[in-house]
Amino acid sequence: MSLSMYQASVPVFLRGLDNLSAIVAKAAEHAAARKVDPAVLLGCRLYPDMFPLSRQIQLVTDFAKGTTARLAGIEPPKYEDVETTVEQLQARIAKTRDFVAGFSAAQVDGSEDREVTLTIGGQPRVYKGQDYLLNFALPNFYFHAATAYGILRHNGVELGKRDFVGRS
Amino acid sequence: MSLSMYQASVPVFLRGLDNLSAIVAKAAEHAAARKVDPAVLLGCRLYPDMFPLSRQIQLVTDFAKGTTARLAGIEPPKYEDVETTVEQLQARIAKTRDFVAGFSAAQVDGSEDREVTLTIGGQPRVYKGQDYLLNFALPNFYFHAATAYGILRHNGVELGKRDFVGRS
Repeated sequence: MSLSMYQASVPVFLRGLDNLSAIVAKAAEHAAARKVDPAVLLGCRLYPDMFPLSRQIQLVTDFAKGTTARLAGIEPPKYEDVETTVEQLQARIAKTRDFVAGFSAAQVDGSEDREVTLTIGGQPRVYKGQDYLLNFALPNFYFHAATAYGILRHNGVELGKRDFVGRS
Repeated sequence: MSLSMYQASVPVFLRGLDNLSAIVAKAAEHAAARKVDPAVLLGCRLYPDMFPLSRQIQLVTDFAKGTTARLAGIEPPKYEDVETTVEQLQARIAKTRDFVAGFSAAQVDGSEDREVTLTIGGQPRVYKGQDYLLNFALPNFYFHAATAYGILRHNGVELGKRDFVGRS
């Protein structure tokens, strides 16, 4: 087996999305057991000018779908950021999972030098596919997933790092 | 350019270590400006049974050095976990950087199927190199880096996601 752009993206995103979904499910169970409205957890932040949990989850999905699509040379689908419940966020994770899983290795492999143009702070920024995946997309994907985890741990949800890294 | 095990590990770890070092430097400036002992920040946690900032930083370096060494087929160096000051933690990050940067592409490339044995929960766990890097090492590396960032943001240190992802 040789490392490829597909191997370093699609299965990694799928695994991360599955882990996130399981973490969100544990958060919902935690809330139900304590008769807390799950929306309270979804609105929690680590600091007032950071995004709440709901937005962190949306961003995890955005990096998964956006990265896979751009590496494959297609325009990422736009998702409206309208989820306000655990069920809606789980549906967004599932929709993202289906989208990402729909790409074949042939569509993503060989994208090391494919030009990916992002708009960052209103300015176009051109990446090569490999740099984009390794130094932009994966750090962002994990950043928002780990921040979601941190928000939940900070609020007393019983999670362990194995929930984040996933079973193997 | 074709994606390789070296490309997906060594430059990624070096970039993450540099970003962490810059974040820790900003935390130290923040503490100095407010006449707060930086050790207060190093002892902060997101929850009582999570690791404090100092340990999160140590773990980022552990995943960087351990992963690179194991992919190259050598025994990782042991670092004593004795750092209690910002200066000592910065020295550990720098020492790790030097160690990781010392590996050549030839030492790491081709390690996709190399067997890596970890002891997890007292039990041996055998990974193939590619699975180890993508599904264990990188998620852990980013988990501890993002948690370090989250601890500092939660305590009011002015950081932005660009500090985490790095300049490009």
